[in-house]
Amino acid sequence: MEPLEESARPPSERTRVRRLPRRAAYDRATIHAILDEALICHLAFAVDGQPYAIPTAFARIDDHVYVHGAAASRMLRAAAGAPICFTVTLVDGLVLARSAFHHSMNYRSVVALGPAEEVVDEAERLAAMRALVERVAPGRWDQIRPPNRQELKATTILRLALSECSAKTRTGPPIDDLEDLALPCWAGVVPLALSRGAPVRDLTR
Amino acid sequence: MEPLEESARPPSERTRVRRLPRRAAYDRATIHAILDEALICHLAFAVDGQPYAIPTAFARIDDHVYVHGAAASRMLRAAAGAPICFTVTLVDGLVLARSAFHHSMNYRSVVALGPAEEVVDEAERLAAMRALVERVAPGRWDQIRPPNRQELKATTILRLALSECSAKTRTGPPIDDLEDLALPCWAGVVPLALSRGAPVRDLTR
Repeated sequence: MEPLEESARPPSERTRVRRLPRRAAYDRATIHAILDEALICHLAFAVDGQPYAIPTAFARIDDHVYVHGAAASRMLRAAAGAPICFTVTLVDGLVLARSAFHHSMNYRSVVALGPAEEVVDEAERLAAMRALVERVAPGRWDQIRPPNRQELKATTILRLALSECSAKTRTGPPIDDLEDLALPCWAGVVPLALSRGAPVRDLTR
Repeated sequence: MEPLEESARPPSERTRVRRLPRRAAYDRATIHAILDEALICHLAFAVDGQPYAIPTAFARIDDHVYVHGAAASRMLRAAAGAPICFTVTLVDGLVLARSAFHHSMNYRSVVALGPAEEVVDEAERLAAMRALVERVAPGRWDQIRPPNRQELKATTILRLALSECSAKTRTGPPIDDLEDLALPCWAGVVPLALSRGAPVRDLTR
């Protein structure tokens, strides 16, 4: 459990959820839980006034998220030191209502804003790389070959503090208008989940 | 099959894949197939110099993608007429290599750039709404109550032409360095897929 007094996090004007504010959450436990379940984020950054949203892996350590990539990556060069948006989305279900208008999805998302900082401390860089591996396969870091000097040099790591962020979620059945409840069509939720299949061993020798 | 002569789509400098260009594709069939499998996109747009990436549902009709939302939505107001990035990502697997460096993911993604246009033609607006419902539950549009005048008025629809876009995919096993192949750790791919669970009927009356 995280200390209660630290978990309240008032939204900024930029991360306050305006559409359907009842779906918003700003507490650390909710935000961390969504981040820790997700496998990828989308990073938004701008190059010459053109916004981009690029998917990439990430890891969370305490109240920072980390992304990594090739040192030459356009995304990392554009994002370092610049205002970015870090977004994570889990799709939980299709919400099939009795009217077209009330169709929706169940989801959990987190949006975090801020300047991305390049991580230069070697211990923190290694911790981020370890977290990136461990989050998809716990215990794996100690079984694999760690990065060598050349690989470390070729890797850039950025971090973003989770200081200006919000979560938005929708759960539950469709909310139909009263006058539509008698319509004969099926209504409800089709649950969705990212599932892992049977691992396929690489037989290369 | 789409006509071959129309499927070649040379990338712009902004959508040409630079990192690992062997993973790139620019043909219409590949791009459409990824879009048609995905349930959500992330839209990147900027407000006061701050980029945002916001998840939302979408539909494709021919060579346009459509998103919709409340007319008052900040996202739609910021994106209408402005340069946006429309990104779709399907996560297909965890790629567990013998070295930390070669860990990866299998994925299929599409990035499309351009100005988002507000759709004002009522027939096209309805076609987009229909496509948004039909893509998650084919045949459903004819069973449900269509949007009434008030709902139509409250809904904004944006479209983006798929003219400046690219796909990027990774498939297959980890690509380890030769000298790591003898390491004793497990290596391979853990397949991932978004799966639908048993539908949960809404019993509200």
